[in-house]
Amino acid sequence: MKVSERLYNSIIDLWDKYNEHPFVKGLADGTLPLEKFQFFMIQDHLYLMQYAKVFALGVLKAKNESDMRLFSGLIAATLDTENALHQDYLRRLNISQEMIAQAKPSIVTDSYTNYMIAIAEKEGLGELMAAVLSCSWSYKLIGDFMEKFPGATEQEFYGEWVNMYISDGYRSSNQLMIDMVDRLTEGYTEQQIQNLEHIVYVCSQYEYMFWDMAWNEKMVEV
Amino acid sequence: MKVSERLYNSIIDLWDKYNEHPFVKGLADGTLPLEKFQFFMIQDHLYLMQYAKVFALGVLKAKNESDMRLFSGLIAATLDTENALHQDYLRRLNISQEMIAQAKPSIVTDSYTNYMIAIAEKEGLGELMAAVLSCSWSYKLIGDFMEKFPGATEQEFYGEWVNMYISDGYRSSNQLMIDMVDRLTEGYTEQQIQNLEHIVYVCSQYEYMFWDMAWNEKMVEV
Amino acid sequence: MKVSERLYNSIIDLWDKYNEHPFVKGLADGTLPLEKFQFFMIQDHLYLMQYAKVFALGVLKAKNESDMRLFSGLIAATLDTENALHQDYLRRLNISQEMIAQAKPSIVTDSYTNYMIAIAEKEGLGELMAAVLSCSWSYKLIGDFMEKFPGATEQEFYGEWVNMYISDGYRSSNQLMIDMVDRLTEGYTEQQIQNLEHIVYVCSQYEYMFWDMAWNEKMVEV
Amino acid sequence: MKVSERLYNSIIDLWDKYNEHPFVKGLADGTLPLEKFQFFMIQDHLYLMQYAKVFALGVLKAKNESDMRLFSGLIAATLDTENALHQDYLRRLNISQEMIAQAKPSIVTDSYTNYMIAIAEKEGLGELMAAVLSCSWSYKLIGDFMEKFPGATEQEFYGEWVNMYISDGYRSSNQLMIDMVDRLTEGYTEQQIQNLEHIVYVCSQYEYMFWDMAWNEKMVEV
Repeated sequence: MKVSERLYNSIIDLWDKYNEHPFVKGLADGTLPLEKFQFFMIQDHLYLMQYAKVFALGVLKAKNESDMRLFSGLIAATLDTENALHQDYLRRLNISQEMIAQAKPSIVTDSYTNYMIAIAEKEGLGELMAAVLSCSWSYKLIGDFMEKFPGATEQEFYGEWVNMYISDGYRSSNQLMIDMVDRLTEGYTEQQIQNLEHIVYVCSQYEYMFWDMAWNEKMVEV
Repeated sequence: MKVSERLYNSIIDLWDKYNEHPFVKGLADGTLPLEKFQFFMIQDHLYLMQYAKVFALGVLKAKNESDMRLFSGLIAATLDTENALHQDYLRRLNISQEMIAQAKPSIVTDSYTNYMIAIAEKEGLGELMAAVLSCSWSYKLIGDFMEKFPGATEQEFYGEWVNMYISDGYRSSNQLMIDMVDRLTEGYTEQQIQNLEHIVYVCSQYEYMFWDMAWNEKMVEV
Repeated sequence: MKVSERLYNSIIDLWDKYNEHPFVKGLADGTLPLEKFQFFMIQDHLYLMQYAKVFALGVLKAKNESDMRLFSGLIAATLDTENALHQDYLRRLNISQEMIAQAKPSIVTDSYTNYMIAIAEKEGLGELMAAVLSCSWSYKLIGDFMEKFPGATEQEFYGEWVNMYISDGYRSSNQLMIDMVDRLTEGYTEQQIQNLEHIVYVCSQYEYMFWDMAWNEKMVEV
Repeated sequence: MKVSERLYNSIIDLWDKYNEHPFVKGLADGTLPLEKFQFFMIQDHLYLMQYAKVFALGVLKAKNESDMRLFSGLIAATLDTENALHQDYLRRLNISQEMIAQAKPSIVTDSYTNYMIAIAEKEGLGELMAAVLSCSWSYKLIGDFMEKFPGATEQEFYGEWVNMYISDGYRSSNQLMIDMVDRLTEGYTEQQIQNLEHIVYVCSQYEYMFWDMAWNEKMVEV
């Protein structure tokens, strides 16, 4: 079995739960209150800026030119393509660039992003890829869910969001990352693969906590 | 005002709350259930191993020999001195080295420690020191609280823990870290100091969450 | 005086020496033997791949979104634009992708690139920028020199190389880096600026050693 | 064959050359001019401070507690034990702490140390250990050579230096590092082992260049 298949099998039950989360359901059926979406978009923007830093560590640790290009492309895609969607919504929500520049990450955003950065720093490229996989792959599955959800793609406000994550561009970028996981973990021992499963498990916890944070508009714990 | 005083003033209200937490109160009056303490000790041990890694980044980034020695000393103190207390309790609690080697960090332990490691990696020595300060200084204050708490230091089981954190050795190590903060942030701008305050705020959130995690013996969120 | 002006003044005498080096003169007047140029192009290619890694550490350490974009752009420019020139020459020189993939860095290439990476890792963004400046700025000055050298730009073989480094694109990219140095070192103390001067001095030594290495086609010292 | 044996076999011819170097021979027979030794001791001191930073990255990347302790012990040994010899000679040579604090690394010292730091940063623990091995192991062999060299150990001035590198403490520390190489490279592929050989080769070049630098009291190339 491919490493990516093992990781998928180990975590799919948790990923499936995301589609039952009120935030995700609200995005699908259009009942999500705007202020919750606004909170989410700001935090997701801060998240993506740090997500790009994980790929930067990929450039640093890459052992050949073609991997350097893949990671460099993922930095650019994170800063530009996916960000374009955010910029568009931020404009529609009247959130100024100044507000974004002053926005602070919530405790969940900080936890999730710095966990990935520290893993990328302490461990190797396979572990780095495992860390970024939960976000990318679970959004792809949320896209699959919404594609079949009646009316989700045609919504006036949330339709653009939904259509981004079911787009060919997004799906091929996610597949690229899955393929990178398999290639960069070739020859991994059972113990190393179990470590990858643990990383995916931790990040998938954070993914769920991120939806919770957005739904509750929660910056801190205490 | 010294930078350390500004940081203290900005966070003391939150640090004071730790002394009202049922876990800390239970340690002081001896009512803390053993299994909660055991959960805490294993997670605290895993925490300290990562805490030492933050100091290792201090060795890497230190600009002169004497700072290298300070950070090297902090690694050794974390791995050895403070760890001695843990080893002693782990024996008394019949927790084998094998159990510890197989223990996984909880989501809170992972969040807190990897946040510090990522800050130490992305930012400078002043920010690194701000990140490690909340743990050290707040334990010193918990020690102060317990020193005055009737009977806390004489408890048969928890007394050793209490006496560690009111010892001269612990207090001078904490003071050393406070002095390092002031020295390594000399010339910092107002914006940089506000960033330090933010780092201390985030880490102090994690400190509170760590007590909560131990009290609830909670490994994960979902 | 701007920091970049101080750095320039401190190092211009050494940079001026590059134009008297037989390799550089041979590029200008077309007498450079092809095999020396081939040796240079392979090492310069390996150099640029590591140069991009320094910018990746810039993405990691950047404190705001616009700096992240600048560093991300510099990675892409290094991997793509400047590399395009190399790819073109590598084809003209019949050097296959396989040969490049198997090529090893010379001791000078390894020394120069890993020095920059270690500085970027241990120090801050200002120091990182000082480290990458010598390469960029001195090539700009070599371009200036060749622009006035009779016939240098019209050479059939080396003309393309010369025209790259006198192009508007190259010059504006170099100016961008100079401006980044000044912006990212705002508020630096005299001691910090002297450290920047030392970094520029070390890298400029390596630049000269790189021309020497290419001229002598020297992989190792012993 | 053990990985350490493969590395030894691949490099022993170069290591043997060190014993023919005029600096090393001068240390053995006592003819080494004091000013050359003084130059060496200052650069070697600066070298060791950076060498300790490589081990700090070992603490950061270690995957278990016992490896963290090994690397922490190597930091302390580098900063303290080996440094004690240097401090003693620096006193005998009337080199003040202030002179050392202001001393700059030569271009060779910078190249060698930052190469090791960058390898430790970009690659894994096995590669980190390969990088630090050349220094440790080749000094052990120089010690073996001097132990048999008539009168080398009894010299009034250089005898202390010689006796350090033939001491049981030094030899067991070197053996510890060899054992770490074998353990941390378990399961390495042929390609990975060839990469280790390359790292040892590059570092051993630097070792030779370091003796040359000291002999010629050479700070820079140009």
